Amino acid sequence: MIVARVSRCAVFLLAALSTAPAWSADAEQPAVDPVVLAKIRDAALSSDWAWQRLSDLTDKIGPRLSGSPGAEAAVVQVAAALQAAGLTVTLQPAKVPHWVRGEEQAELVDYPGHPAGLTQHLHLTTLGGSVATPKKGLTAPVLVVHSFDDLKAHAAEAKGRIVLFDNAFDQDLADNGHAMSAYGQAVAYRVQGASAAARVGAVASLIRSVGGADFRLPHTGVMKYEDDAPKIPTAALTAEDAMWVARLAAQGPVSLHLTLTPQTLPDADSHNVLADLPGSDKPDEVVVVSGHLDSWDLAQGAIDDGAGITAAMGAVQVLKSLGLQAHRTIRVVGWMNEENGSGGSKAYFAAAKDKLAQQTAVIESDSGAGKPLGVIASVTLDSLARLSAVSKALQPIGATALERRDGEVGADISPLQDAGVPGFAPMVDTREYFYYHHTAADTLDKIKPENLRRQVATMAVLAYYLAEMPEPLPRVPVKAE
Amino acid sequence: MIVARVSRCAVFLLAALSTAPAWSADAEQPAVDPVVLAKIRDAALSSDWAWQRLSDLTDKIGPRLSGSPGAEAAVVQVAAALQAAGLTVTLQPAKVPHWVRGEEQAELVDYPGHPAGLTQHLHLTTLGGSVATPKKGLTAPVLVVHSFDDLKAHAAEAKGRIVLFDNAFDQDLADNGHAMSAYGQAVAYRVQGASAAARVGAVASLIRSVGGADFRLPHTGVMKYEDDAPKIPTAALTAEDAMWVARLAAQGPVSLHLTLTPQTLPDADSHNVLADLPGSDKPDEVVVVSGHLDSWDLAQGAIDDGAGITAAMGAVQVLKSLGLQAHRTIRVVGWMNEENGSGGSKAYFAAAKDKLAQQTAVIESDSGAGKPLGVIASVTLDSLARLSAVSKALQPIGATALERRDGEVGADISPLQDAGVPGFAPMVDTREYFYYHHTAADTLDKIKPENLRRQVATMAVLAYYLAEMPEPLPRVPVKAE
Repeated sequence: MIVARVSRCAVFLLAALSTAPAWSADAEQPAVDPVVLAKIRDAALSSDWAWQRLSDLTDKIGPRLSGSPGAEAAVVQVAAALQAAGLTVTLQPAKVPHWVRGEEQAELVDYPGHPAGLTQHLHLTTLGGSVATPKKGLTAPVLVVHSFDDLKAHAAEAKGRIVLFDNAFDQDLADNGHAMSAYGQAVAYRVQGASAAARVGAVASLIRSVGGADFRLPHTGVMKYEDDAPKIPTAALTAEDAMWVARLAAQGPVSLHLTLTPQTLPDADSHNVLADLPGSDKPDEVVVVSGHLDSWDLAQGAIDDGAGITAAMGAVQVLKSLGLQAHRTIRVVGWMNEENGSGGSKAYFAAAKDKLAQQTAVIESDSGAGKPLGVIASVTLDSLARLSAVSKALQPIGATALERRDGEVGADISPLQDAGVPGFAPMVDTREYFYYHHTAADTLDKIKPENLRRQVATMAVLAYYLAEMPEPLPRVPVKAE
Repeated sequence: MIVARVSRCAVFLLAALSTAPAWSADAEQPAVDPVVLAKIRDAALSSDWAWQRLSDLTDKIGPRLSGSPGAEAAVVQVAAALQAAGLTVTLQPAKVPHWVRGEEQAELVDYPGHPAGLTQHLHLTTLGGSVATPKKGLTAPVLVVHSFDDLKAHAAEAKGRIVLFDNAFDQDLADNGHAMSAYGQAVAYRVQGASAAARVGAVASLIRSVGGADFRLPHTGVMKYEDDAPKIPTAALTAEDAMWVARLAAQGPVSLHLTLTPQTLPDADSHNVLADLPGSDKPDEVVVVSGHLDSWDLAQGAIDDGAGITAAMGAVQVLKSLGLQAHRTIRVVGWMNEENGSGGSKAYFAAAKDKLAQQTAVIESDSGAGKPLGVIASVTLDSLARLSAVSKALQPIGATALERRDGEVGADISPLQDAGVPGFAPMVDTREYFYYHHTAADTLDKIKPENLRRQVATMAVLAYYLAEMPEPLPRVPVKAE
């Protein structure tokens, strides 16, 4: 189990480094006062400020898809809360897609053993960015495949059909600490499935929902059309419905009627919310601590990513409430449009790109609010040891794992990471994350207040440490294109 | 944990009785040949006949609410399968209610901190039997209460409001083997809530769904209007939505718009399916082995009660396929209308009531297809020991528990039980039953084929034993009214 292995590794580092940190000029003098780090942690653990913000964002606004009234309400609400907390707030303009879900419906019209006159409804949800079917829907036979290779093997049968990619999410992998790998495997069908199916002549494409639970919940999410294929409508069946159609199709021809009426409206004007706690003597150097404001439209977006943005807000609010000021500026960023276009991420990068050296570290939380286990760091190999003081400060809450990862640790911060900025994310328990991700069940009750407080503590200690250490961590070598 | 305790008790009985069954005239000669019971068990465990019937019923027909085309298709399909299995099939007429779900929708129109212009949708489902709201819905303030006592305490505030009973299903109780007690506690609000709310002037009533999972699934089910209260529309919110409304209401006034458009049509003509394996020398004496054909309309009705009826069918099919004939007739009954009126149960009782002595034992399976643990028996105290041969035969599959219960063990067989007929049900693992019960997620994939085979074995051994024992078990004393 990776998490445990990493955890042991981190403990080993702590033991090796506790008496003489190799990275400090003066072995007796830690770079950042551990007493201050402990104070930050304890203040975070005893505050419900972030929980109140999360309640406001989820219960009072709820769905916040880019371009929607909810997304705009979130910008206003989050900016006001950060201003009230005493931070310097800026709204950074960003253009975002504006996709609106319409009707979404499917019925089995024929299958082996179908009693005459009986209508069977499938549970599904349109994938974000999909084009519509004709208004009255389309009817076509189904071709069930289990992988892209399987589609290739049956390419000759795809013409005029609705292709269903019946690929199961690997919950065992998720249960073993590899939720993101499980997601990566399955999400390929959500993102690329429609174009793959269209290329071989399909009239629509369906996937099995990307998620590990069995409660007939469809999971939405973004899809992308590739330039070399016609645009065909696409949706996610629940796991139950995908298995059902596959069982029927194994017995003979199945056809279904599919009605999806989404609309893509002109791009909308929106904003990232930026809120600075200015640095005492290096105010131009910035540590970003962030989560995203937008969510999918099916639910409150509590785990994705209400928890992330409110934990980031809470991290800086706790520093401010303690009257702390680090050498560098600590900046909350509430990203707009993580889910379907990264408009906010692009806008921030465009504004920052001429002075990238000022961006010294970027933290994003976007894996929900499971129990924090430690920190994931995309940093140079020798930087990892320099973070042991963070792990030490978090030892009382068990968030001691330090895992180095190459490449992206957060979608919104990836352009900065790609430019060499060290990137960070809280490591949290994600075993149940993909039960709820992008479904109607992503609601506030899924989050334990104490886990959110622990995540605030993790991000506050990490952000302060990165902003207070004498020199920023070294840049990460940029990969050759 | 009751199940474990009962199980140990059963094992004790087995040990005490294995050499000299006190109930047998000849201590060396068991009443029913254990070799035959073992043969029945093994044949059931190696057959997928019941699974095929369950697949046909769920995948090909699906929802089967009384009066619907699905319910009628189920009568036809089940009768044909039992006929093909070589049994003597009769359709027994039954009048059933015909309730049709219409639109079901609710939106929060005002609450503390509501951003102007934002619409928040609640997830809910109309309760079976509910009257409709006006076509365009009704708007009213919400009164949240947590119990009937709480409603009494706030009776003065209920007038003109929508009462929400925010009462949580006790999953801990269910996890400890008391799922039916947990259901009994919570279902009172579903059945009686509307009239209780109407009596104090409410214009509609809502409950928190009766179920233990947290995947934003509304649970439907029957409700009843009492004569002394106006009929008001009623629905079940998901647990998530009930908690959400309660959180908002704790902060200030909440109002919502509710649109439910169900219809109650004239009673419909339907049928129980009866299929006899005639007794060799006492063909007029009957052992009923049963489940119900109808289901709620939101899903396939796999656990409720596709599993029960197809296990009952499989139990008798396996006896027939082995060429076995007991002394008494073994009768499969596929009950119509268990869910909302018991029309089938009443019809069977009306036909049987003049010759009730012919009904020697009744078995119903209606608790899903979790792993079988043994047998629940509503019998006289001294009858229990006489069932030890059944437990013995089921020892290889671990279904050894013998639990005596006073009163109803199955809704459809309760009129017969009330008249003194010994009643039985397979005891199964019900810890997850109320995750899915009456929801859209009650689908075939929730059932493990090996558990269904084990349930067929349990019911086949029990039915054969009851039909083959020299004398029927004694009648159960009838409770005074």
